Amino acid sequence: MNARDLDAYCDAHQARFIDELVEFCRIPSISTDPAHAGDVRRSAEWLARGARDAGFATTELIETAGHPAVYAERMVDPGLPTVLIYGHHDIQPVDPLEEWTSPPFEPRIVGGELRCRGAADDKGHVWMHLKAVQAHLRTRGELPLNLKLVVEGEEEIGSAHFEELIGAEATRLRADLCVVSDTAMHGRGQPSICVGLRGLVALEVEVTGPALDLHSGEFGGAVLNPLEALSRILASLRDPRTGRVTVPGFYDEVVELTREERTQVAASPFDEAAFREVAGGVLATFGENGYTTTERRTVRPTVEINGVWGGYQGPGSKTIIPARAGAKITCRLVPRQQPEVILDRVRAAIEAATPDAVRVTVTPGGGSRPVLTPVDHPGVLAASRAMKEVFGAEVYCTRAGGSIHPVEMFDRLLGLPSVLVGFGLPDDRIHAPNEKFDIGQFRSGIRVLTRLWDELAENLQRTSPGES
Amino acid sequence: MNARDLDAYCDAHQARFIDELVEFCRIPSISTDPAHAGDVRRSAEWLARGARDAGFATTELIETAGHPAVYAERMVDPGLPTVLIYGHHDIQPVDPLEEWTSPPFEPRIVGGELRCRGAADDKGHVWMHLKAVQAHLRTRGELPLNLKLVVEGEEEIGSAHFEELIGAEATRLRADLCVVSDTAMHGRGQPSICVGLRGLVALEVEVTGPALDLHSGEFGGAVLNPLEALSRILASLRDPRTGRVTVPGFYDEVVELTREERTQVAASPFDEAAFREVAGGVLATFGENGYTTTERRTVRPTVEINGVWGGYQGPGSKTIIPARAGAKITCRLVPRQQPEVILDRVRAAIEAATPDAVRVTVTPGGGSRPVLTPVDHPGVLAASRAMKEVFGAEVYCTRAGGSIHPVEMFDRLLGLPSVLVGFGLPDDRIHAPNEKFDIGQFRSGIRVLTRLWDELAENLQRTSPGES
Repeated sequence: MNARDLDAYCDAHQARFIDELVEFCRIPSISTDPAHAGDVRRSAEWLARGARDAGFATTELIETAGHPAVYAERMVDPGLPTVLIYGHHDIQPVDPLEEWTSPPFEPRIVGGELRCRGAADDKGHVWMHLKAVQAHLRTRGELPLNLKLVVEGEEEIGSAHFEELIGAEATRLRADLCVVSDTAMHGRGQPSICVGLRGLVALEVEVTGPALDLHSGEFGGAVLNPLEALSRILASLRDPRTGRVTVPGFYDEVVELTREERTQVAASPFDEAAFREVAGGVLATFGENGYTTTERRTVRPTVEINGVWGGYQGPGSKTIIPARAGAKITCRLVPRQQPEVILDRVRAAIEAATPDAVRVTVTPGGGSRPVLTPVDHPGVLAASRAMKEVFGAEVYCTRAGGSIHPVEMFDRLLGLPSVLVGFGLPDDRIHAPNEKFDIGQFRSGIRVLTRLWDELAENLQRTSPGES
Repeated sequence: MNARDLDAYCDAHQARFIDELVEFCRIPSISTDPAHAGDVRRSAEWLARGARDAGFATTELIETAGHPAVYAERMVDPGLPTVLIYGHHDIQPVDPLEEWTSPPFEPRIVGGELRCRGAADDKGHVWMHLKAVQAHLRTRGELPLNLKLVVEGEEEIGSAHFEELIGAEATRLRADLCVVSDTAMHGRGQPSICVGLRGLVALEVEVTGPALDLHSGEFGGAVLNPLEALSRILASLRDPRTGRVTVPGFYDEVVELTREERTQVAASPFDEAAFREVAGGVLATFGENGYTTTERRTVRPTVEINGVWGGYQGPGSKTIIPARAGAKITCRLVPRQQPEVILDRVRAAIEAATPDAVRVTVTPGGGSRPVLTPVDHPGVLAASRAMKEVFGAEVYCTRAGGSIHPVEMFDRLLGLPSVLVGFGLPDDRIHAPNEKFDIGQFRSGIRVLTRLWDELAENLQRTSPGES
């Protein structure tokens, strides 16, 4: 479908779109800081007004036990497909403030970049959706499909109350597809769509030996040191030669990628030196033998030690055998691995690796299931076409190594598949000082979204009633 | 030599001895707390007066860059042997205060025990020495040998300036033997003399990977986690089956005990269940195959991990691959093992165990050499006879697993052998709430010391000039 009319509108109003986004970004909606609770609410109210102005018929705040979310919808016809747009209006803290080259809440455009906290993550993305809707309505008078929008206020604090919100609003949130814009493209001029996310299961290990710290001179050599036992347990979880997790059964449900899928993963450009640079300048990559770096971080499961503690950590030395030692672990899961099952297996491996002279306890933390949208899903194909048309380049289907909790929740609680269409760039410095969003990406992204509504209207199978 | 005259004096004045000790213990001479610096000085002044009252001809404070020490001497005749008495007048902090059943600086006698901070460690012991001297002088008018006394004010903070003090006062501290009373007997009714102390070498290990913490979803599986590398390094230092340190060359200089020496070690009573109880109720003992628990903790060297840190240690989870991870290690050394040599070997083993994908640095900490006084040294034999006569039981020669820095300094800097004649009991709760000193031990200890001066006067070889 020709989108020249939409493009013309967007071109004519680009300056205003940016001005509005700048205003949105002035609100310091830092969800983790109680002192900013009022700002998070102000951000929600501001956004609800923005959604109304854009043309959503219903706009309201959904209260939670924490910060409010914004809900909006424009139901055109129950016979049309319904898409749910997901984003968030809360942002990360700004410290260390002294590393910002301009104040984080005084947005500036420098060298084609909008610089401020939240520009890319995720206010810029949310605003693009509103503007794409506005372009359709102002140009053509109506949307080609039903749209719902849910923008939460707690994404940066782990979507603390979003599962409750989905449970309470399940009927209203029903849709045929969820479009999430909170990610980055593979690179500049390298459009990509994320179709898979790894799952997660967290656990905490505590090894206890003596009831109190012992003098290491008096007891050293005769009592097993909990830190030694813990080190041995942690080292046992992975084979240092093959890089494989040694937990019995860890890979049982993991489906090997087909040759075709591996080719697809390999199609995304990858530069080893650039990757090592992004990975904090590590000396070398390391991972499971027989898999590429991209595979290791996206389609293969892993066990990571996130923290370890025990004994004396201050200056100088303190000659003790500590009473206890602990570690935090998270496993990244790939499709078909169940968090509960993997937790049980890791626990069993830890218990088996624990020497008799100490006790061990394993405490489960949170978990989320891996999610995967088939690459031939109509939503993925629609997004792919829209991106290709705007960026003029092949669109990669990628899988990400992290988890996005709401995506997993939509999948698990509503059976709702997600397509992750994001327009960030890898160097956007989200969560860090000097976050920025590329103005060109903002402009192109809106054009992709206007086309996406057309594409989805035409191709998306209507699987659920469009009305609440 | 008959000591009935001395015993009669001690019996007649026991009540006063206790009253004086109570006053001494009222002074909160906590060396680690700057707020108590004035108290440490007051304690030194009080002690110097006590030494003068006891009959030491010279008494003075020796200033250091930290807290003052007390020096006293009574030189009877340069032709007689000279003994240096070592002790300390500073004490440990008292927290947690709420666990004390009576205030730590309001000494009380309950059930034959003097309860207060410093009662056993080390004010009670220091006071016994003064009273033994006083008994000799008041009863016989003169000491049978030359006595020097050095009582430092920083033992509880690692004898921070004692090495400087010894260097500056080397001539004045010269003696034929050092008698240290700052230890416990093997048990009630089980007199023992400590003739050996393990040495020590401390080091810190830091493993660094990425320059900053990485998102474990984004990078997990493709980058080696410094905590995993550190765990592997730490686990590699010891064989979990044999309990032996695996550092190449670690045991090279270690001399195996003769059958006779092992028999001697085994002669000290040992109760496995009681030991496990004292060791914080551990499930089982663990150590080097082929050695008894007592051997493992006293005559065998070991590597202990005193602290480990890295990544996230707070509540909940934080999904990172940390930039760095660290550990503090101390090795306990036995005779002929040199701290510098062992440090080099441990460092080499750590470097060899470090995977290529991360960096490691090993920073040396302090060290002290092991010390051992031959069991047939005249000082040991003299102390043994004195103890046997008072306690009416065989006296064990033991070796301790810990280090007492001043003992090593006297050995290294002055070539001065030490005999450790202490009268504490294993349950004295030194360094812990409700420290106590057994009144019976205090009484018996003074008697042992009065006899010790007689025994040493008769048997100790004069090896150094008695005068400064």
